[in-house]
Amino acid sequence: MGTLAELGELAFVSAIRRLTDKSPAHRGVRLGVGDDAALVKTGAATLLTTDTMTEGVHFRSHWLTPRALGLRLFRVAVSDIAAMGGTPRYLILSLEAPGDYPVDDAHELVSGLVADAADVGAALVGGNVSHGDRLSLTLTVVGDAGRHSAKRSGARPGQAVFVTGTLGDASAGVQQLEHGKSRGKLVDAYRKPPLRVDVAKALVKTGSVAAMIDVSDGLAQDLGHVCRASGVSARIDTGLLPVSRALQAAGEDPLDHAVTGGDNYELLFTLRSKKAEEAAARVCRRFECPLTKIGVIEKNHGHALVVDQSGRELHGGYSHF
Amino acid sequence: MGTLAELGELAFVSAIRRLTDKSPAHRGVRLGVGDDAALVKTGAATLLTTDTMTEGVHFRSHWLTPRALGLRLFRVAVSDIAAMGGTPRYLILSLEAPGDYPVDDAHELVSGLVADAADVGAALVGGNVSHGDRLSLTLTVVGDAGRHSAKRSGARPGQAVFVTGTLGDASAGVQQLEHGKSRGKLVDAYRKPPLRVDVAKALVKTGSVAAMIDVSDGLAQDLGHVCRASGVSARIDTGLLPVSRALQAAGEDPLDHAVTGGDNYELLFTLRSKKAEEAAARVCRRFECPLTKIGVIEKNHGHALVVDQSGRELHGGYSHF
Repeated sequence: MGTLAELGELAFVSAIRRLTDKSPAHRGVRLGVGDDAALVKTGAATLLTTDTMTEGVHFRSHWLTPRALGLRLFRVAVSDIAAMGGTPRYLILSLEAPGDYPVDDAHELVSGLVADAADVGAALVGGNVSHGDRLSLTLTVVGDAGRHSAKRSGARPGQAVFVTGTLGDASAGVQQLEHGKSRGKLVDAYRKPPLRVDVAKALVKTGSVAAMIDVSDGLAQDLGHVCRASGVSARIDTGLLPVSRALQAAGEDPLDHAVTGGDNYELLFTLRSKKAEEAAARVCRRFECPLTKIGVIEKNHGHALVVDQSGRELHGGYSHF
Repeated sequence: MGTLAELGELAFVSAIRRLTDKSPAHRGVRLGVGDDAALVKTGAATLLTTDTMTEGVHFRSHWLTPRALGLRLFRVAVSDIAAMGGTPRYLILSLEAPGDYPVDDAHELVSGLVADAADVGAALVGGNVSHGDRLSLTLTVVGDAGRHSAKRSGARPGQAVFVTGTLGDASAGVQQLEHGKSRGKLVDAYRKPPLRVDVAKALVKTGSVAAMIDVSDGLAQDLGHVCRASGVSARIDTGLLPVSRALQAAGEDPLDHAVTGGDNYELLFTLRSKKAEEAAARVCRRFECPLTKIGVIEKNHGHALVVDQSGRELHGGYSHF
C-alpha cells in the first residue's frame, strides 16, 4: 500500500474511518471520524486525560511492532482513567508521522489501538494526522466518571497501602531492550501493560478506596504524589513489594526497579478500613488480579514523604526532563 | 526562571495549575490539573476535536511570540467546535518541548492559550508535559454540542454557499513570513485567526444552516469535503470571493490565495432557504461578522466537486503529506 505520502491524508483518514465504524464499541458515537469534530453521548461527569509517545524519546521503533505500539499507547493512556475508577468511552488520536511511514504500519498501529480499546468498550472517534520528522502519538481518552471517582487526595493516617500486580518488570524490560534483548517476560511487561480498568471500577464501587493513582513514573514518585495531595506520609515495607520471579532472576537489583522503575501501570491505593481490605481482596480475587499490602499511611513527616521500614527516604523515578 | 529542565516537570505543572485555577472559565471543573485525569461536568452530547502544531512543520519559532502561539493554538483547534455550532468548554494540552526551552516562554504560551479560551468560556483542565527535541503542541477541545450540530453532510442542490470574513489573508501572511516580513495585516491574519464560536452558535440556533465546515485547508478543498459528504457539487463565483484590500495590495494573485490558501478559519456554510439567508444576515450583522454569498450548491457533477462560474474545476489546498 506504500507510504502515507503516496496514499495521502484523506485516503488514510477514510481507511481509519472504516476501521472505527466497524468497532463494537461504537455505540454512543453519533458522529465519528470524518466531520469537523466527533459528536458523542456523555454522562453528567466526564474524565479527560492525555498521553504522548514519541519515537526516540519514549520508545525506539524496533522495540515494538506497530500493532503492539497501538495497544501500548491505549493502555498507557487509559491507565489514568482506570486510576480514577472511570470507564473509558472515546478516544482522540493525534498521529504525526514522516511522509515515508508505511501505510500498512499506520493501519496496524491504529488497528491494535482500536481492537484493544474495544475490549473495554472504548471507541476511536476522531483525531488529527499530520506530517512530522518522527512518529509521535498523542491519545486523549474521554471517560465516564460514574458516581464516585478515586482521587489522589484521600489518603489518611492509618490506612493501608496496596498495589496490584508486580512492580519493576517493565522498567527492567526497557533496560533489556536498550541492551538489545527483544524477548522474555520483562520485555513483554513493557510491551503490554496491564489493563486495570475493570478491577479499578469494581474496587471504587465498593466504596473502600480512599486514594488511588497508577504507578507510571515509579512507586516512590507516584506514592509521593498521593502523599503530597493528601498531606500525609507513607511507610513502605520493601520486603513486601511484589517482585516477579522473572525480575528476581534477571540479575539486577529487583528492589531498585520495584521502587523507582516506571511503566508499571499498576494501581496503587489506600483503603479506608479493615473491612475495606476484605472487600478489596474479594474484588481482586474475582478479577484474578494480584493484590499486595505494601505499607501504611502515616502523619506527614515533613520533607520525607515516602520512607521504608527503617525510616530511610525512598525517592527517584522517571523524570520527563 | 531558567529552563524547563532546571525547573522540572512537577514544578511546571504546579505553575500551570495556579494559572488555570484562576481562570474565570473554571466553572464546571470539579478536578483540574494535578490528578490522574480531569473531572468535568458535561451535557448529554459532547463534541471532541484535536489539533497539533509542531515547530518546523506547522510554524517557525520566530513567526510568533510564545503568547501568540498559545492564542493561535486555541483558535485553530476551537475552530472545529465552532464549525459544528458548539460551545467549547474544556481543553487538554499535550506539550512537548526541549529541556532548554525557557520556563518563561512556556508560561507565556500557556497564559496566552488560557486567556483567549476564557473569553469564550473554555478552561484548560489537564494535559501532559514531556521532553521532545522540538516544540510540539496538541490541543484537544471538548465542547457542548447543544441541541443541533452543523454537519458537513447537509448541503442540498439550490442552497446558497456563504463564507464569513475574508479569504486568503493568512495564506499570503505565511508567504510573507517565509520571505522575512514580520509585520502587517496579512501576517496578523495568520497570527490571530478569527474566533467564530459565538456567531456560529447563533447561526446554527436559527435553524438556517444546512451544512457547515471551517476553512482550514483552503476554500476549494474544504468546500470539496462538504460536497463529498453531502453527495453534491458546488459552483463558486470567484468574482464574489471576499478578498481584503491588504491582500489585493500585496502584489500576488489574490484569487489563488482565496481559493487554495489555508489557515483562514472562517465559517463556510450553506443555507436552507431565502428566509434562512435573511436570518443569517441578521445574525452576522449583530456579531459584526462579514458575510458573503459566494455560490450555489448543484447536483453532483461527477468528479468535479467544486467549479467556478465558467465551469472550471477548483482544486488544490493544504496537504499534510
